[in-house]
Amino acid sequence: MSFEHHVEELNRRVESTLDEWLPDDAMPPRPLHRSMRYAVFNGGKRIRPLLSYATADVLGIERQSVDPIAAAIELIHCYSLVHDDLPAMDDDDLRRGKPTVHRAFDEATAILCGDALQALAFEKLANETQQAAIVGYLASACSSAGMAGGQALDLMYEATRPEQADIEHMFRLKTGALLDAAVLMPALLAGSSKNDCLALREFAESVGLAFQIIDDLLDVEGTSEQIGKPAGSDQAMDKASWPLLYGIDAAHQRSEALIQQAAESLQRLEGNTEPLRWMAQRILRRNF
Amino acid sequence: MSFEHHVEELNRRVESTLDEWLPDDAMPPRPLHRSMRYAVFNGGKRIRPLLSYATADVLGIERQSVDPIAAAIELIHCYSLVHDDLPAMDDDDLRRGKPTVHRAFDEATAILCGDALQALAFEKLANETQQAAIVGYLASACSSAGMAGGQALDLMYEATRPEQADIEHMFRLKTGALLDAAVLMPALLAGSSKNDCLALREFAESVGLAFQIIDDLLDVEGTSEQIGKPAGSDQAMDKASWPLLYGIDAAHQRSEALIQQAAESLQRLEGNTEPLRWMAQRILRRNF
Repeated sequence: MSFEHHVEELNRRVESTLDEWLPDDAMPPRPLHRSMRYAVFNGGKRIRPLLSYATADVLGIERQSVDPIAAAIELIHCYSLVHDDLPAMDDDDLRRGKPTVHRAFDEATAILCGDALQALAFEKLANETQQAAIVGYLASACSSAGMAGGQALDLMYEATRPEQADIEHMFRLKTGALLDAAVLMPALLAGSSKNDCLALREFAESVGLAFQIIDDLLDVEGTSEQIGKPAGSDQAMDKASWPLLYGIDAAHQRSEALIQQAAESLQRLEGNTEPLRWMAQRILRRNF
Repeated sequence: MSFEHHVEELNRRVESTLDEWLPDDAMPPRPLHRSMRYAVFNGGKRIRPLLSYATADVLGIERQSVDPIAAAIELIHCYSLVHDDLPAMDDDDLRRGKPTVHRAFDEATAILCGDALQALAFEKLANETQQAAIVGYLASACSSAGMAGGQALDLMYEATRPEQADIEHMFRLKTGALLDAAVLMPALLAGSSKNDCLALREFAESVGLAFQIIDDLLDVEGTSEQIGKPAGSDQAMDKASWPLLYGIDAAHQRSEALIQQAAESLQRLEGNTEPLRWMAQRILRRNF
């Protein structure tokens, strides 16, 4: 059965782990715990956990063995959204059509919410996998050489016209590092060969870059309803946007080519590559 | 030779590890990397690393074996100061007499600086100790059941009159959790007995509580020069301050009694307790 038919079940799977991990919101400090659950259970598409589960399939390991990886990476993703939305950062009022955390609660709670979600991710990942190398890999993806560094570059590029290579380097850090961790952590868990790791890394790099170009395209072409916040905000914020800088048609072509490249990387793997292939197509065709 | 004579050397030791760990500030994104070094090399007293080194002594393990623990916990402490100083939190302009990170750089950089310091702590601790249990312990101390939760309670208690038990519970999370980790992580590394861990935990609990009461006392009694920011800011912010709520004399008595209690906990340990005893006295007599 195609991976598509497992998506709902896998989403329930990661949400059940997240529900188990997150402190009860009746436990003090209640506003903080409520904000953490609000940030996590927000209708997210769970792309990163799905990539981890799809990688488990290609590596031939049990899906349930990557449950802690899937949930930890989603916590990190959610924390990054809470901080990115803050007034000092992107200053967004809406996220998936609902008030952002600093709007629904307050700014101090949103800062602490992100901080606590990051800590929770590492706590649970460490305690449940008991594998320091996996924790170190995820932490590196979150660092100034990964996601946080990409966000800093994004802010630096506002109101500038970066070269295409620079904007793509920023994408690799901002979005790519976490997608890379989503497929490489299962490989570390499985003790995969260097060749398999390399193929997965190339897959993730292409998919991550395409993901962010499509994100920028959605901001230009999508409706506010589709993207859950005002469309055109990149332009309004003078963000370094791939399609705005290099053209909408070129952006479509580049993302198509990257997804094609991702599919080619998968040919070097021996297991069942259909789930990752499906995920790459889903990312290319997404409208959310 | 008394532990006192090793303090300078141990401070150099942890600063050399931190210098090695922190990305070069010539590496992009430069503002982020500069802010990280600015936040860490700020004249801090390195109390938490010193507690870890002092614990190594009592447990009879090599001081160098706790280098990654000492540096990781200092990164976490530094990240927490950067976020606590933010306008939405304590809104402090000065820290140890110098502009706070959001003042020296900007608010977005300060948020990302704290985020990246937290990630770096877990990355290096995981990769250098290869012990997931130690990483999980530190992450738990940073979580909503630890430091981040304590900070949230502190904000909730502004303009209220919490019971003494409530304010002390808040101190246990806000300050105590990290001091507890500073002594318990070396114990995990050493594979200490349950009894030793229990004695160390009681020591840390008393010291942590005293530490925060003294912090509040310094805000009331210290000069701005001593504490490196405007004295009296707790009162100005309507913070839940132990001495303001329960009296200055009572605060002195309570902190003396707690340090006495900490010394008693040490009597149950068999190794050289002089370093931890000296640290407890240093915390009681501190004027910074």
